[in-house]
Amino acid sequence: MEVWLTEKHSEDIALSYRVTKTIFSGMSSYQHIDVVENPQYGRMLLLDGIVMFAEANEFHYSEMISHVPLFVHPDPRKVLIIGGGDGGTAREVLRHPDVERIDLVEIDRMVVETALKHFPHIAGALENQKVNLRFEDGAEFVRTTDNRYDVAIVDSTDPIGPGEKLFKKEFYQNLLKCLASDGLMVAQSESLLFHSKLIREVMGHLKSLFSTAHLYCAFVPVYQGGMWAFAFASKKYDPKKNFRKDKYNTLSLPLRYYNDQIHHGAFCLPTFVKKMEEGSNTPSLPDSQ
Amino acid sequence: MEVWLTEKHSEDIALSYRVTKTIFSGMSSYQHIDVVENPQYGRMLLLDGIVMFAEANEFHYSEMISHVPLFVHPDPRKVLIIGGGDGGTAREVLRHPDVERIDLVEIDRMVVETALKHFPHIAGALENQKVNLRFEDGAEFVRTTDNRYDVAIVDSTDPIGPGEKLFKKEFYQNLLKCLASDGLMVAQSESLLFHSKLIREVMGHLKSLFSTAHLYCAFVPVYQGGMWAFAFASKKYDPKKNFRKDKYNTLSLPLRYYNDQIHHGAFCLPTFVKKMEEGSNTPSLPDSQ
Repeated sequence: MEVWLTEKHSEDIALSYRVTKTIFSGMSSYQHIDVVENPQYGRMLLLDGIVMFAEANEFHYSEMISHVPLFVHPDPRKVLIIGGGDGGTAREVLRHPDVERIDLVEIDRMVVETALKHFPHIAGALENQKVNLRFEDGAEFVRTTDNRYDVAIVDSTDPIGPGEKLFKKEFYQNLLKCLASDGLMVAQSESLLFHSKLIREVMGHLKSLFSTAHLYCAFVPVYQGGMWAFAFASKKYDPKKNFRKDKYNTLSLPLRYYNDQIHHGAFCLPTFVKKMEEGSNTPSLPDSQ
Repeated sequence: MEVWLTEKHSEDIALSYRVTKTIFSGMSSYQHIDVVENPQYGRMLLLDGIVMFAEANEFHYSEMISHVPLFVHPDPRKVLIIGGGDGGTAREVLRHPDVERIDLVEIDRMVVETALKHFPHIAGALENQKVNLRFEDGAEFVRTTDNRYDVAIVDSTDPIGPGEKLFKKEFYQNLLKCLASDGLMVAQSESLLFHSKLIREVMGHLKSLFSTAHLYCAFVPVYQGGMWAFAFASKKYDPKKNFRKDKYNTLSLPLRYYNDQIHHGAFCLPTFVKKMEEGSNTPSLPDSQ
């Protein structure tokens, strides 16, 4: 018997994985959590049936959401991660020795517990003493906190269920308030092929709030369409002009996706993506939402 | 009833499309040919059950395989296309007014006939008077022809069946012989996620034969893993240093993926891809072949 897990990326397109083992299946207060094994991609974490990452290629996403902002800010001591309960982003942020403290605000404690148990090489970062875990609503946290961060990383789920608020203008307004005077943020911003309407909205919000807002792209094979958007917004620093090449060369991190060339290459956008960045209303593909 | 077409990208991963209409199904001397319709991606052409392109995003591939070489060669008058019977690559090449003649060598006449009938806006380019169609084996053509080309584009199927020979060293040796003294070539080189062994072999061949050989990447949503490799090899010109910015600005082509920034950005490789370009033997993922 062959067992296949199918994730519908839209009404019309689906990506399927052969499952050789279901390692965990549970229901938290917020969502279904599953851990399965695929021979090619390794162990995979799913929330509400949507693949969050696969062991074999989670580094694409984790490295690209973390090192782009951290090699732009000249002195990133305090970092906020919204979501990211699997620990992949925290692991990458911790590679930067100038980071003194990470506040990681994950709504669902069971995501962290599951990741620590079944993905210790990814989630192990969450046990680092620099990481301060808070199990609460990220949107509520940024609304109420008095903390100020150098870098904020929004490592959210899709804009359905608990993640929905994290794509609204009010959230970005509150996030802006949590940044130091030279702070900057990155948010995972969904599929360049399937969610162009959402991406244009997010870019519109960020452009109205921050002095600098850009899109950048990375290949994330387990996500819808594989072509993923990240929104970079900053009060002061330009992600291309202010790349810290000296720090990059000195640290010489053992990375597998991010490097000094890709830092620049990721901001070189295909023309139809440039139009999304500009807020144009002519998507190249029919959107699934 | 919902009908889904499933393409196995490997033993363990599959991409599926909801099919609202099967427009054509036939068997040529070489392969099964199908044309189906998907609500999101539009009409799709399949050869032996493998998706060759979808209307909604074929421009990603067609533009990236064509304009990268044609904006590097300073005077591309004679162009050879191996494969490419759907016409997408020829359509893009014809946007360059300096191109005087395209020899397009497609083994399977029925691919051209099917494309002309069911994808006239893509295949129409094949009826242009600059295009000289030859229905023969591309490997045999480059072995025996006395023609000399400025630019050769290998727009082949996967290295299974008729396409297999087009990934061998002997083929590239013969292709080199068909190039003018300042000629250059680009070959579609399969999935950066699924075929790293093949890509390393191809790069090894090209590095041993040409003075310059580089990989570049593009997102091709319907192909395995979505992260696609193109191999650029040249007798004289460097794809990054010799970008013809003046020509690019003057022509101002109405493109949707390729632009002057992506010309450079596509050669900015993720670290695990750089290692493939260098011929390293440490793939980041288990290969499916």
